[in-house]
Amino acid sequence: MRLSQLFTRTAHQVPADEQSLNAKLLIRAGYIHKEMAGIYDFLPLGLRVLNKIIGIIRDEMNAIGGQELQMSSLQREELWQKTDRWDDKKVDIWFKSKLQNGSEVGLAWSHEEPIVDMLKNFVSSYRDLPICVYQFQTKLRNEIRAKGGILRTREFIMKDMYSLSRTAEEHEAFYQQAIEAYHKVFKRIGIDDKTFFTFASGGAFTQFSHEFQTLLDTGEDTVFLDRNKKMAVNEEVMSDEVLAQLGLEKAKLDKERVAEVGNIFNFGITKAEQLGLQFSDESDQKQSVFLGSYGIGVTRLMGVVAELFADDKGLVWPQSIAPAHVHLVALPGSQNLQAAEKLYQQLTAAAVEVIYDDRGESAGKMFADADLLGIPLRLVISEKTLADGGFELKTRTESEAKLVSKNSIIDIVKR
Amino acid sequence: MRLSQLFTRTAHQVPADEQSLNAKLLIRAGYIHKEMAGIYDFLPLGLRVLNKIIGIIRDEMNAIGGQELQMSSLQREELWQKTDRWDDKKVDIWFKSKLQNGSEVGLAWSHEEPIVDMLKNFVSSYRDLPICVYQFQTKLRNEIRAKGGILRTREFIMKDMYSLSRTAEEHEAFYQQAIEAYHKVFKRIGIDDKTFFTFASGGAFTQFSHEFQTLLDTGEDTVFLDRNKKMAVNEEVMSDEVLAQLGLEKAKLDKERVAEVGNIFNFGITKAEQLGLQFSDESDQKQSVFLGSYGIGVTRLMGVVAELFADDKGLVWPQSIAPAHVHLVALPGSQNLQAAEKLYQQLTAAAVEVIYDDRGESAGKMFADADLLGIPLRLVISEKTLADGGFELKTRTESEAKLVSKNSIIDIVKR
Repeated sequence: MRLSQLFTRTAHQVPADEQSLNAKLLIRAGYIHKEMAGIYDFLPLGLRVLNKIIGIIRDEMNAIGGQELQMSSLQREELWQKTDRWDDKKVDIWFKSKLQNGSEVGLAWSHEEPIVDMLKNFVSSYRDLPICVYQFQTKLRNEIRAKGGILRTREFIMKDMYSLSRTAEEHEAFYQQAIEAYHKVFKRIGIDDKTFFTFASGGAFTQFSHEFQTLLDTGEDTVFLDRNKKMAVNEEVMSDEVLAQLGLEKAKLDKERVAEVGNIFNFGITKAEQLGLQFSDESDQKQSVFLGSYGIGVTRLMGVVAELFADDKGLVWPQSIAPAHVHLVALPGSQNLQAAEKLYQQLTAAAVEVIYDDRGESAGKMFADADLLGIPLRLVISEKTLADGGFELKTRTESEAKLVSKNSIIDIVKR
Repeated sequence: MRLSQLFTRTAHQVPADEQSLNAKLLIRAGYIHKEMAGIYDFLPLGLRVLNKIIGIIRDEMNAIGGQELQMSSLQREELWQKTDRWDDKKVDIWFKSKLQNGSEVGLAWSHEEPIVDMLKNFVSSYRDLPICVYQFQTKLRNEIRAKGGILRTREFIMKDMYSLSRTAEEHEAFYQQAIEAYHKVFKRIGIDDKTFFTFASGGAFTQFSHEFQTLLDTGEDTVFLDRNKKMAVNEEVMSDEVLAQLGLEKAKLDKERVAEVGNIFNFGITKAEQLGLQFSDESDQKQSVFLGSYGIGVTRLMGVVAELFADDKGLVWPQSIAPAHVHLVALPGSQNLQAAEKLYQQLTAAAVEVIYDDRGESAGKMFADADLLGIPLRLVISEKTLADGGFELKTRTESEAKLVSKNSIIDIVKR
């Protein structure tokens, strides 16, 4: 990708009403555009980050048997009435609209009800289970406050997954698999050491739900954290009884601000009972299905990573989700541009993703933009580096660059 | 993908209110699920087809310099007021909803207004142009009637692209490039010979818009078609004057039913004027940007292909968008399953996408399902084929299968 072709530009200004660090950085770097409060567009570089995150999550959900699908955004009142989640007093973040015939439709904020209803067409026997399905889907939630940049938005991409199991044991086994898969996702994205498995408030069926909470000063949640056990308790359920139950000691806990990057929830058989999803077991007895639901806010995850690693110069992306592997800068001069053009072709042919700054701006401007964009590796070509027989390589967080030879550059970058 | 693991099943029944051929076939084959009239979910096999179509379109839009982004679904009233497209009397397919503070938001049915407004942040000089951006985005349209299966829905995935040019000439040149790119898309999907460049009604700025219309008995549009010139005129603009203008002769035209798979539209400078998108030209004079908009209904395209190629046994996918390259059937018997398992691994390792029917059903049931699913190649392993030293290969549309040897199978399939 040549910066001379990319339509976005870095900017010093951000919208006056924008207070969050992640949105300020992402807007300045041209990754996102603010449409209105809590509603953002994802511009080419931002979409690349999202797609990298989506690719990692997809891998790990497929690895535990998840089958990807795409449910509709428009939803039927009837289904949510059955579970008593249609009323705005019960669920206060619905966006609703009306069909031309006057009947109301809901705009998807979650999908348990439609998923369970859809699966009634495919589940009748114990042989049809277990099933795990997931999607990456745009959720709409009518939040009263939306001030956290892309950490809390009215419209966001969510990976939502649903497991249907025959027994409590089968459900529990899958639940543990999902926990492992989530840790793998966060590890690949580089935040697992800052992300804690957290006990939070449950629902009708279970005492707890579980969250994955990442340490972040601007996070909306507060947890009590046992760093040795890598476990946390959300403030909302914190009590002496809960600590005793979980085997945690108050004295060993740190109170920390965190941002929720994932949550998992056990609905037991309640949804299946309300919506009529049953199967015949081995003895031909009707049983209700156990439902689990497993979310990761893809856009929020991007915001958490942006905020977590940023420094005073701009964004710092982990290699696994950076919009490119290398940021190639050619200092002005036809010889430099010629060498850079050749290297750009070579790297691209070697499947290295390159942002190539071919704009011929001043070194200061181009270096500042490279820092703001946050690509993990920066390669500079100048008359001096060419005279020395190579290019200047620097990681985003190092202050000193080193010279690498023309011949070894592709090997070094690919490593 | 093992059919024993896939949660969808083929079905004989479809919803009683479903009248369209494409939806009936896609529901029976488990590609889609009907949520309500005009609203469908895309199940794993259906999502695979969609993603193949998206991949082809993305390739071709990138090839003409398109930059992919993702705009929000929630839209601001203010922008559409400026262009007089907010009023339900002017645009009768809006879904609207309300924020908690009572202000109305629109749900995206198109994106010209937000795209132009967003680009005001990045365009100030002639050096910033031309720009072409596109997205794959879920559009919501409050259609009064929605009876064509996935040909006309209230929610659908659209590739919408927008070009911003400095002059009428630059606009026209890009418009022609987009037409070529569209033909390449339809060619790769296998429908270009049935798809015609069509003159349709224009807007305030131009006499005509242009459509890509595919011959289809159940299509909603009617065109007058010159097969030699590969040109058509939409019934809505058909007149002697128009024919004279386009150099067409009435006697050489065939009246045909068609389905619109793409449309392109020239807004001239009207949107830029209404929304205030200007740039400074080489003489430092303020000019308004020329806007073009280019749509392909991804989900509709899938429906058109489904309907166009289907036979009385079920779906028939072109190789380029089939959910898998090969449908592998192992007839019951441990020897067959063992050989099939090995072949499944080999094909998968060779990057051949395989649907593997490992269910051990009767040959009749598995063959009928293979026909209904419509994968281009069917491979059968039975005791007889193994005794003859190989497997039985048949294309979806051939009636006779031929024996291929174990050693040559991967080469043959990859071809």
